[in-house]
Amino acid sequence: MAQNIYDDPGFFDGYSALPRSVKGLDGAAEWPVLLTMLPSMADRAVVDLGCGFGWFCRWAADAGASTVLGVDLSENMLARARRDTTDPRISYEQCDLDQLELPAAQFDFAYSSLTLHYLTDLPRLFRTVHQSLRPGAEFVFSAEHPICTAPSNPQFVAGPRGNQCWPVDGYLREGARTTHWLAPGVVKQHRTIATYLTDLLAAGFELTSFVEWGPSAEQIRQVPEWEVELERPYFLLVGARRA
Amino acid sequence: MAQNIYDDPGFFDGYSALPRSVKGLDGAAEWPVLLTMLPSMADRAVVDLGCGFGWFCRWAADAGASTVLGVDLSENMLARARRDTTDPRISYEQCDLDQLELPAAQFDFAYSSLTLHYLTDLPRLFRTVHQSLRPGAEFVFSAEHPICTAPSNPQFVAGPRGNQCWPVDGYLREGARTTHWLAPGVVKQHRTIATYLTDLLAAGFELTSFVEWGPSAEQIRQVPEWEVELERPYFLLVGARRA
Repeated sequence: MAQNIYDDPGFFDGYSALPRSVKGLDGAAEWPVLLTMLPSMADRAVVDLGCGFGWFCRWAADAGASTVLGVDLSENMLARARRDTTDPRISYEQCDLDQLELPAAQFDFAYSSLTLHYLTDLPRLFRTVHQSLRPGAEFVFSAEHPICTAPSNPQFVAGPRGNQCWPVDGYLREGARTTHWLAPGVVKQHRTIATYLTDLLAAGFELTSFVEWGPSAEQIRQVPEWEVELERPYFLLVGARRA
Repeated sequence: MAQNIYDDPGFFDGYSALPRSVKGLDGAAEWPVLLTMLPSMADRAVVDLGCGFGWFCRWAADAGASTVLGVDLSENMLARARRDTTDPRISYEQCDLDQLELPAAQFDFAYSSLTLHYLTDLPRLFRTVHQSLRPGAEFVFSAEHPICTAPSNPQFVAGPRGNQCWPVDGYLREGARTTHWLAPGVVKQHRTIATYLTDLLAAGFELTSFVEWGPSAEQIRQVPEWEVELERPYFLLVGARRA
Protein backbone atom coordinates (compact mmCIF):
# COMPACT_ATOMS: atom_id res chain seq x y z
CA MET A 1 0.00 0.00 0.00
CA ALA A 2 1.37 3.40 -0.95
CA GLN A 3 1.69 6.29 1.52
CA ASN A 4 -0.88 9.05 0.88
CA ILE A 5 1.47 11.93 1.60
CA TYR A 6 -0.25 14.19 -0.95
CA ASP A 7 -3.24 14.47 1.42
CA ASP A 8 -0.96 15.73 4.20
CA PRO A 9 -1.90 19.46 4.41
CA GLY A 10 1.69 20.73 4.66
CA PHE A 11 2.90 18.53 1.81
CA PHE A 12 -0.10 19.43 -0.33
CA ASP A 13 0.49 23.16 0.14
CA GLY A 14 4.18 22.76 -0.72
CA TYR A 15 3.44 20.60 -3.73
CA SER A 16 0.75 23.01 -4.93
CA ALA A 17 3.34 25.81 -5.03
CA LEU A 18 5.82 23.93 -7.28
CA PRO A 19 6.18 25.23 -10.85
CA ARG A 20 4.75 21.96 -12.20
CA SER A 21 1.61 22.47 -10.07
CA VAL A 22 1.17 26.13 -10.97
CA LYS A 23 2.18 26.06 -14.65
CA GLY A 24 1.37 22.44 -15.44
CA LEU A 25 3.39 20.44 -17.94
CA ASP A 26 5.40 23.47 -19.08
CA GLY A 27 6.54 23.90 -15.48
CA ALA A 28 8.05 20.39 -15.45
CA ALA A 29 11.69 20.47 -16.56
CA GLU A 30 11.55 16.92 -17.96
CA TRP A 31 8.39 17.48 -20.03
CA PRO A 32 10.13 18.49 -23.30
CA VAL A 33 11.96 15.13 -23.34
CA LEU A 34 8.91 13.11 -22.25
CA LEU A 35 6.98 14.74 -25.09
CA THR A 36 9.38 13.26 -27.64
CA MET A 37 8.70 9.79 -26.19
CA LEU A 38 4.90 9.93 -26.55
CA PRO A 39 2.92 8.43 -29.42
CA SER A 40 0.11 10.37 -31.07
CA MET A 41 -2.88 10.78 -28.74
CA ALA A 42 -5.35 10.99 -31.67
CA ASP A 43 -8.35 8.74 -30.99
CA ARG A 44 -6.49 6.87 -28.26
CA ALA A 45 -8.02 5.62 -25.02
CA VAL A 46 -5.54 6.87 -22.42
CA VAL A 47 -4.96 6.04 -18.76
CA ASP A 48 -2.81 8.25 -16.49
CA LEU A 49 -1.58 6.52 -13.33
CA GLY A 50 -0.94 9.11 -10.62
CA CYS A 51 -2.68 11.90 -12.50
CA GLY A 52 -2.41 14.50 -9.73
CA PHE A 53 -4.07 17.74 -10.77
CA GLY A 54 -4.96 16.29 -14.18
CA TRP A 55 -2.58 18.36 -16.31
CA PHE A 56 -1.58 15.43 -18.48
CA CYS A 57 -5.19 14.18 -18.78
CA ARG A 58 -6.27 17.55 -20.14
CA TRP A 59 -3.24 17.73 -22.43
CA ALA A 60 -4.03 14.25 -23.84
CA ALA A 61 -7.67 15.17 -24.45
CA ASP A 62 -6.61 18.42 -26.14
CA ALA A 63 -4.21 16.35 -28.27
CA GLY A 64 -7.11 14.24 -29.54
CA ALA A 65 -7.49 11.32 -27.13
CA SER A 66 -10.93 9.73 -27.34
CA THR A 67 -11.13 9.06 -23.60
CA VAL A 68 -8.79 9.73 -20.68
CA LEU A 69 -8.96 8.04 -17.29
CA GLY A 70 -6.91 9.69 -14.53
CA VAL A 71 -6.23 7.64 -11.39
CA ASP A 72 -4.77 8.99 -8.17
CA LEU A 73 -4.67 8.18 -4.47
CA SER A 74 -5.02 11.77 -3.30
CA GLU A 75 -8.52 13.13 -2.66
CA ASN A 76 -7.12 16.66 -2.55
CA MET A 77 -5.49 16.36 -5.92
CA LEU A 78 -8.50 14.77 -7.56
CA ALA A 79 -10.78 17.48 -6.13
CA ARG A 80 -8.69 20.13 -7.87
CA ALA A 81 -8.38 18.00 -11.02
CA ARG A 82 -12.17 17.72 -11.25
CA ARG A 83 -12.59 21.43 -10.56
CA ASP A 84 -10.14 22.28 -13.37
CA THR A 85 -11.60 19.85 -15.91
CA THR A 86 -14.65 20.44 -18.09
CA ASP A 87 -13.90 18.04 -20.98
CA PRO A 88 -16.46 15.19 -20.82
CA ARG A 89 -13.93 12.73 -22.32
CA ILE A 90 -11.92 12.90 -19.09
CA SER A 91 -12.86 10.98 -15.94
CA TYR A 92 -11.07 10.57 -12.63
CA GLU A 93 -10.95 7.72 -10.17
CA GLN A 94 -9.57 7.56 -6.64
CA CYS A 95 -7.46 4.45 -6.10
CA ASP A 96 -4.26 3.19 -4.47
CA LEU A 97 -2.17 2.10 -7.47
CA ASP A 98 -0.80 -0.77 -5.38
CA GLN A 99 -4.33 -2.19 -5.49
CA LEU A 100 -5.46 -0.95 -8.91
CA GLU A 101 -7.53 -3.13 -11.20
CA LEU A 102 -8.11 -2.19 -14.82
CA PRO A 103 -10.28 -3.83 -17.50
CA ALA A 104 -8.47 -6.02 -20.05
CA ALA A 105 -7.27 -4.64 -23.42
CA GLN A 106 -9.08 -1.35 -22.85
CA PHE A 107 -6.39 1.28 -23.40
CA ASP A 108 -4.18 2.41 -26.28
CA PHE A 109 -1.71 4.29 -24.12
CA ALA A 110 -0.69 4.30 -20.46
CA TYR A 111 1.21 7.10 -18.76
CA SER A 112 2.63 7.62 -15.31
CA SER A 113 4.57 10.65 -14.14
CA LEU A 114 6.74 10.54 -10.98
CA THR A 115 4.46 8.10 -9.19
CA LEU A 116 5.99 4.62 -9.36
CA HIS A 117 8.64 5.35 -6.70
CA TYR A 118 5.82 5.59 -4.15
CA LEU A 119 4.43 2.12 -4.91
CA THR A 120 5.37 -1.00 -3.00
CA ASP A 121 4.29 -3.61 -5.58
CA LEU A 122 5.72 -2.67 -8.95
CA PRO A 123 5.45 -6.14 -10.59
CA ARG A 124 1.72 -6.14 -9.83
CA LEU A 125 1.20 -2.67 -11.31
CA PHE A 126 3.19 -3.52 -14.47
CA ARG A 127 1.09 -6.67 -14.98
CA THR A 128 -2.10 -4.67 -14.39
CA VAL A 129 -1.06 -2.06 -16.97
CA HIS A 130 0.09 -4.70 -19.44
CA GLN A 131 -3.19 -6.60 -19.49
CA SER A 132 -5.14 -3.33 -19.71
CA LEU A 133 -3.36 -2.32 -22.93
CA ARG A 134 -4.21 -3.47 -26.42
CA PRO A 135 -1.38 -5.35 -28.20
CA GLY A 136 1.16 -2.88 -29.60
CA ALA A 137 0.06 -0.12 -27.20
CA GLU A 138 2.71 1.94 -25.46
CA PHE A 139 3.46 2.76 -21.83
CA VAL A 140 5.60 5.76 -20.91
CA PHE A 141 6.57 6.50 -17.34
CA SER A 142 8.90 8.69 -15.34
CA ALA A 143 10.24 8.03 -11.87
CA GLU A 144 12.79 9.52 -9.57
CA HIS A 145 16.15 8.07 -10.69
CA PRO A 146 17.46 5.26 -8.44
CA ILE A 147 20.71 7.19 -7.96
CA CYS A 148 18.50 9.78 -6.24
CA THR A 149 16.32 7.42 -4.23
CA ALA A 150 19.20 5.25 -2.95
CA PRO A 151 21.22 7.50 -0.61
CA SER A 152 20.72 7.61 3.14
CA ASN A 153 21.53 11.31 2.89
CA PRO A 154 20.32 12.51 -0.52
CA GLN A 155 22.07 15.86 -0.74
CA PHE A 156 25.07 17.08 -2.71
CA VAL A 157 28.29 17.24 -0.73
CA ALA A 158 31.60 18.93 -1.53
CA GLY A 159 34.00 16.50 -3.18
CA PRO A 160 37.76 16.40 -2.64
CA ARG A 161 38.38 18.87 -5.46
CA GLY A 162 35.68 21.33 -4.43
CA ASN A 163 33.25 19.85 -6.94
CA GLN A 164 29.74 18.77 -5.98
CA CYS A 165 29.34 15.02 -5.48
CA TRP A 166 26.22 12.96 -4.98
CA PRO A 167 26.92 10.46 -2.17
CA VAL A 168 25.49 7.13 -3.29
CA ASP A 169 25.06 4.42 -0.71
CA GLY A 170 22.70 1.50 -0.34
CA TYR A 171 22.01 1.36 -4.08
CA LEU A 172 21.73 -2.43 -4.04
CA ARG A 173 19.67 -2.44 -0.83
CA GLU A 174 16.14 -1.91 -2.10
CA GLY A 175 13.23 -0.79 0.02
CA ALA A 176 11.65 2.21 1.72
CA ARG A 177 13.51 5.48 2.16
CA THR A 178 12.07 8.13 4.46
CA THR A 179 13.07 11.63 3.49
CA HIS A 180 12.14 15.21 4.09
CA TRP A 181 10.74 16.66 0.88
CA LEU A 182 8.11 19.38 1.32
CA ALA A 183 7.15 17.62 4.57
CA PRO A 184 8.89 15.26 6.99
CA GLY A 185 8.35 11.54 6.73
CA VAL A 186 7.87 11.19 2.96
CA VAL A 187 8.29 7.50 2.13
CA LYS A 188 9.69 6.54 -1.26
CA GLN A 189 10.52 3.05 -2.45
CA HIS A 190 14.07 2.71 -3.70
CA ARG A 191 14.51 0.11 -6.40
CA THR A 192 17.37 -0.29 -8.84
CA ILE A 193 17.23 0.41 -12.57
CA ALA A 194 17.64 -3.35 -13.02
CA THR A 195 14.47 -3.94 -11.03
CA TYR A 196 12.46 -1.41 -13.07
CA LEU A 197 13.62 -3.05 -16.29
CA THR A 198 13.38 -6.66 -15.12
CA ASP A 199 9.85 -6.13 -13.79
CA LEU A 200 8.86 -4.43 -17.04
CA LEU A 201 10.19 -7.28 -19.20
CA ALA A 202 8.67 -9.89 -16.85
CA ALA A 203 5.24 -8.26 -17.27
CA GLY A 204 5.54 -8.77 -21.03
CA PHE A 205 6.69 -5.32 -22.14
CA GLU A 206 9.39 -4.61 -24.69
CA LEU A 207 11.72 -1.69 -23.91
CA THR A 208 11.51 1.04 -26.57
CA SER A 209 13.23 4.05 -24.98
CA PHE A 210 15.25 4.86 -21.89
CA VAL A 211 16.38 8.31 -20.74
CA GLU A 212 18.32 9.41 -17.69
CA TRP A 213 17.16 12.97 -17.45
CA GLY A 214 19.30 16.00 -16.81
CA PRO A 215 18.75 19.60 -17.87
CA SER A 216 19.57 20.64 -21.43
CA ALA A 217 22.24 23.21 -22.23
CA GLU A 218 19.43 25.68 -22.94
CA GLN A 219 17.74 25.00 -19.59
CA ILE A 220 21.07 25.54 -17.81
CA ARG A 221 21.52 28.81 -19.70
CA GLN A 222 18.14 29.92 -18.37
CA VAL A 223 18.63 28.54 -14.84
CA PRO A 224 22.41 28.41 -14.22
CA GLU A 225 22.07 26.73 -10.79
CA TRP A 226 20.74 23.63 -12.56
CA GLU A 227 24.25 22.84 -13.83
CA VAL A 228 24.82 20.69 -10.73
CA GLU A 229 22.04 18.41 -12.03
CA LEU A 230 24.57 17.09 -14.60
CA GLU A 231 26.52 15.45 -11.77
CA ARG A 232 23.86 12.72 -11.53
CA PRO A 233 20.56 12.04 -13.33
CA TYR A 234 17.42 13.17 -11.55
CA PHE A 235 14.67 11.33 -13.41
CA LEU A 236 14.28 8.04 -15.23
CA LEU A 237 12.07 8.26 -18.35
CA VAL A 238 11.07 4.93 -19.84
CA GLY A 239 9.10 3.91 -22.91
CA ALA A 240 7.76 0.38 -23.42
CA ARG A 241 5.42 -1.47 -25.70
CA ARG A 242 3.00 -4.31 -25.07
CA ALA A 243 4.29 -7.01 -27.40
CA MET B 1 40.43 3.89 -31.34
CA ALA B 2 40.74 2.10 -28.02
CA GLN B 3 43.79 2.44 -25.75
CA ASN B 4 45.93 -0.74 -25.71
CA ILE B 5 46.71 -0.62 -21.99
CA TYR B 6 46.83 -4.42 -21.74
CA ASP B 7 50.11 -4.39 -23.65
CA ASP B 8 51.62 -2.01 -21.08
CA PRO B 9 54.07 -4.30 -19.18
CA GLY B 10 53.11 -3.02 -15.70
CA PHE B 11 49.40 -3.26 -16.40
CA PHE B 12 49.75 -6.69 -17.98
CA ASP B 13 51.63 -8.05 -14.97
CA GLY B 14 49.02 -6.62 -12.59
CA TYR B 15 46.13 -7.92 -14.66
CA SER B 16 47.76 -11.35 -14.96
CA ALA B 17 47.79 -11.62 -11.17
CA LEU B 18 44.04 -10.95 -10.72
CA PRO B 19 41.94 -13.95 -9.62
CA ARG B 20 40.06 -13.87 -12.94
CA SER B 21 43.37 -14.18 -14.81
CA VAL B 22 44.73 -16.96 -12.61
CA LYS B 23 41.56 -18.98 -11.99
CA GLY B 24 39.60 -18.02 -15.10
CA LEU B 25 35.82 -17.68 -15.07
CA ASP B 26 35.51 -19.09 -11.54
CA GLY B 27 37.77 -16.27 -10.36
CA ALA B 28 35.34 -13.65 -11.69
CA ALA B 29 32.81 -12.69 -9.04
CA GLU B 30 30.12 -11.83 -11.60
CA TRP B 31 30.44 -15.11 -13.54
CA PRO B 32 27.72 -17.04 -11.62
CA VAL B 33 25.16 -14.40 -12.63
CA LEU B 34 26.44 -14.09 -16.21
CA LEU B 35 26.13 -17.84 -16.53
CA THR B 36 22.38 -17.65 -15.87
CA MET B 37 22.06 -15.13 -18.74
CA LEU B 38 23.72 -17.33 -21.37
CA PRO B 39 21.87 -19.49 -23.90
CA SER B 40 23.01 -23.04 -24.62
CA MET B 41 26.34 -23.12 -26.46
CA ALA B 42 25.55 -26.45 -28.16
CA ASP B 43 26.39 -26.27 -31.86
CA ARG B 44 26.55 -22.49 -31.78
CA ALA B 45 29.02 -20.33 -33.68
CA VAL B 46 30.27 -17.97 -30.97
CA VAL B 47 32.23 -14.71 -31.06
CA ASP B 48 33.90 -13.26 -27.95
CA LEU B 49 34.75 -9.56 -28.18
CA GLY B 50 37.66 -8.74 -25.91
CA CYS B 51 38.52 -12.37 -25.26
CA GLY B 52 41.68 -11.72 -23.21
CA PHE B 53 43.33 -14.95 -22.18
CA GLY B 54 40.58 -16.99 -23.89
CA TRP B 55 38.91 -18.39 -20.78
CA PHE B 56 35.40 -17.86 -22.13
CA CYS B 57 36.34 -19.16 -25.60
CA ARG B 58 37.54 -22.42 -24.08
CA TRP B 59 34.48 -22.63 -21.80
CA ALA B 60 32.14 -22.13 -24.80
CA ALA B 61 33.93 -24.84 -26.81
CA ASP B 62 33.79 -27.21 -23.83
CA ALA B 63 30.06 -26.39 -23.56
CA GLY B 64 29.55 -27.58 -27.14
CA ALA B 65 30.02 -24.54 -29.39
CA SER B 66 30.77 -25.54 -32.99
CA THR B 67 33.24 -22.68 -33.52
CA VAL B 68 34.54 -19.88 -31.32
CA LEU B 69 36.23 -16.73 -32.53
CA GLY B 70 38.03 -14.69 -29.88
CA VAL B 71 38.98 -11.11 -30.74
CA ASP B 72 41.25 -8.87 -28.70
CA LEU B 73 43.47 -5.83 -29.14
CA SER B 74 46.26 -7.09 -26.89
CA GLU B 75 49.08 -9.10 -28.45
CA ASN B 76 50.23 -10.20 -25.01
CA MET B 77 46.84 -11.57 -24.06
CA LEU B 78 46.37 -13.34 -27.40
CA ALA B 79 49.84 -14.91 -27.14
CA ARG B 80 48.85 -16.48 -23.83
CA ALA B 81 45.37 -17.39 -25.12
CA ARG B 82 46.92 -19.25 -28.07
CA ARG B 83 49.44 -20.94 -25.77
CA ASP B 84 46.63 -22.14 -23.47
CA THR B 85 44.31 -23.32 -26.26
CA THR B 86 44.50 -26.64 -28.09
CA ASP B 87 40.88 -27.00 -29.26
CA PRO B 88 40.85 -26.62 -33.08
CA ARG B 89 37.34 -25.14 -32.98
CA ILE B 90 38.75 -22.00 -31.35
CA SER B 91 40.54 -19.27 -33.29
CA TYR B 92 41.87 -15.90 -32.23
CA GLU B 93 42.19 -12.62 -34.09
CA GLN B 94 43.99 -9.43 -33.14
CA CYS B 95 41.82 -6.36 -33.76
CA ASP B 96 40.83 -2.99 -32.27
CA LEU B 97 37.10 -3.47 -31.59
CA ASP B 98 36.54 0.16 -32.53
CA GLN B 99 37.49 -0.89 -36.07
CA LEU B 100 36.19 -4.46 -36.09
CA GLU B 101 34.46 -5.91 -39.13
CA LEU B 102 32.59 -9.20 -38.97
CA PRO B 103 30.92 -11.23 -41.72
CA ALA B 104 27.12 -10.97 -41.98
CA ALA B 105 24.79 -13.43 -40.21
CA GLN B 106 27.69 -15.68 -39.23
CA PHE B 107 27.26 -16.12 -35.47
CA ASP B 108 24.66 -17.62 -33.14
CA PHE B 109 25.93 -15.91 -30.02
CA ALA B 110 28.07 -12.88 -29.20
CA TYR B 111 29.74 -12.26 -25.87
CA SER B 112 31.81 -9.44 -24.43
CA SER B 113 33.20 -9.29 -20.91
CA LEU B 114 34.38 -5.99 -19.37
CA THR B 115 35.58 -4.58 -22.67
CA LEU B 116 33.01 -2.10 -23.97
CA HIS B 117 34.00 0.65 -21.51
CA TYR B 118 37.33 0.89 -23.34
CA LEU B 119 35.75 1.52 -26.75
CA THR B 120 35.15 4.95 -28.22
CA ASP B 121 32.53 4.03 -30.84
CA LEU B 122 29.86 1.92 -29.20
CA PRO B 123 27.11 2.48 -31.83
CA ARG B 124 29.47 1.16 -34.51
CA LEU B 125 30.38 -1.94 -32.49
CA PHE B 126 26.70 -2.69 -31.70
CA ARG B 127 25.82 -2.41 -35.41
CA THR B 128 28.76 -4.64 -36.33
CA VAL B 129 27.67 -7.28 -33.82
CA HIS B 130 24.02 -7.03 -34.85
CA GLN B 131 24.66 -7.66 -38.53
CA SER B 132 27.05 -10.51 -37.69
CA LEU B 133 24.35 -12.40 -35.77
CA ARG B 134 21.68 -14.63 -37.23
CA PRO B 135 18.10 -13.45 -36.54
CA GLY B 136 17.06 -14.49 -33.01
CA ALA B 137 20.67 -14.84 -31.84
CA GLU B 138 21.66 -13.41 -28.48
CA PHE B 139 24.31 -10.98 -27.31
CA VAL B 140 25.39 -10.89 -23.67
CA PHE B 141 27.88 -8.34 -22.41
CA SER B 142 29.25 -6.96 -19.18
CA ALA B 143 30.79 -3.55 -18.60
CA GLU B 144 31.95 -1.51 -15.69
CA HIS B 145 28.80 0.13 -14.28
CA PRO B 146 28.42 3.82 -15.25
CA ILE B 147 28.12 4.73 -11.56
CA CYS B 148 31.72 3.47 -11.34
CA THR B 149 33.07 5.03 -14.51
CA ALA B 150 31.53 8.49 -13.91
CA PRO B 151 33.36 9.92 -10.86
CA SER B 152 36.35 12.19 -11.09
CA ASN B 153 37.60 10.46 -7.93
CA PRO B 154 36.32 6.86 -8.05
CA GLN B 155 36.96 5.79 -4.46
CA PHE B 156 34.67 5.26 -1.48
CA VAL B 157 34.61 8.15 0.98
CA ALA B 158 33.25 8.32 4.52
CA GLY B 159 29.69 9.64 4.53
CA PRO B 160 28.20 11.94 7.18
CA ARG B 161 27.10 8.96 9.30
CA GLY B 162 30.36 7.04 9.08
CA ASN B 163 29.00 4.90 6.27
CA GLN B 164 30.87 4.41 3.00
CA CYS B 165 29.58 6.54 0.13
CA TRP B 166 30.44 6.44 -3.54
CA PRO B 167 30.89 10.05 -4.71
CA VAL B 168 29.14 10.34 -8.07
CA ASP B 169 29.88 13.35 -10.21
CA GLY B 170 29.86 14.00 -13.94
CA TYR B 171 27.44 11.13 -14.59
CA LEU B 172 25.73 13.04 -17.42
CA ARG B 173 29.04 14.24 -18.85
CA GLU B 174 30.10 11.35 -21.05
CA GLY B 175 33.61 10.79 -22.35
CA ALA B 176 37.07 9.61 -21.39
CA ARG B 177 38.10 9.12 -17.77
CA THR B 178 41.76 8.59 -16.95
CA THR B 179 42.29 6.57 -13.80
CA HIS B 180 44.94 4.63 -11.99
CA TRP B 181 44.01 0.95 -12.03
CA LEU B 182 46.94 -1.48 -12.06
CA ALA B 183 48.88 1.22 -13.91
CA PRO B 184 48.64 5.00 -14.24
CA GLY B 185 46.85 6.54 -17.22
CA VAL B 186 44.21 3.88 -17.88
CA VAL B 187 41.60 5.47 -20.14
CA LYS B 188 37.99 4.30 -19.85
CA GLN B 189 35.02 5.73 -21.69
CA HIS B 190 32.22 6.79 -19.39
CA ARG B 191 28.78 6.52 -20.89
CA THR B 192 25.42 6.45 -19.16
CA ILE B 193 23.15 3.43 -18.83
CA ALA B 194 20.78 5.31 -21.13
CA THR B 195 23.48 5.45 -23.81
CA TYR B 196 24.22 1.71 -23.54
CA LEU B 197 20.51 0.92 -23.89
CA THR B 198 19.71 3.52 -26.53
CA ASP B 199 22.65 2.44 -28.71
CA LEU B 200 21.62 -1.21 -28.30
CA LEU B 201 18.01 -0.53 -29.33
CA ALA B 202 19.16 1.72 -32.20
CA ALA B 203 21.33 -1.11 -33.56
CA GLY B 204 18.21 -3.29 -33.76
CA PHE B 205 18.55 -5.32 -30.56
CA GLU B 206 15.75 -6.14 -28.17
CA LEU B 207 16.61 -6.00 -24.45
CA THR B 208 16.12 -9.38 -22.76
CA SER B 209 17.91 -9.03 -19.41
CA PHE B 210 19.58 -6.35 -17.34
CA VAL B 211 21.53 -6.82 -14.11
CA GLU B 212 23.34 -4.33 -11.90
CA TRP B 213 25.82 -6.63 -10.28
CA GLY B 214 26.75 -6.74 -6.62
CA PRO B 215 28.01 -9.67 -4.56
CA SER B 216 25.55 -12.28 -3.30
CA ALA B 217 24.95 -12.88 0.41
CA GLU B 218 27.01 -16.05 0.08
CA GLN B 219 29.90 -14.20 -1.58
CA ILE B 220 29.86 -11.62 1.22
CA ARG B 221 29.89 -14.42 3.80
CA GLN B 222 33.04 -15.76 2.13
CA VAL B 223 34.66 -12.35 1.57
CA PRO B 224 33.22 -9.99 4.22
CA GLU B 225 35.03 -6.91 2.89
CA TRP B 226 32.86 -7.13 -0.24
CA GLU B 227 29.86 -5.87 1.71
CA VAL B 228 30.76 -2.32 0.70
CA GLU B 229 30.05 -3.38 -2.90
CA LEU B 230 26.33 -3.20 -2.03
CA GLU B 231 26.61 0.58 -1.71
CA ARG B 232 26.73 0.88 -5.50
CA PRO B 233 26.70 -1.62 -8.40
CA TYR B 234 30.08 -2.52 -9.85
CA PHE B 235 29.16 -4.19 -13.15
CA LEU B 236 26.41 -3.90 -15.73
CA LEU B 237 25.34 -7.25 -17.22
CA VAL B 238 23.10 -7.01 -20.28
CA GLY B 239 21.34 -9.55 -22.45
CA ALA B 240 19.89 -8.69 -25.88
CA ARG B 241 18.49 -10.46 -28.89
CA ARG B 242 18.73 -9.69 -32.58
CA ALA B 243 15.09 -9.23 -33.56
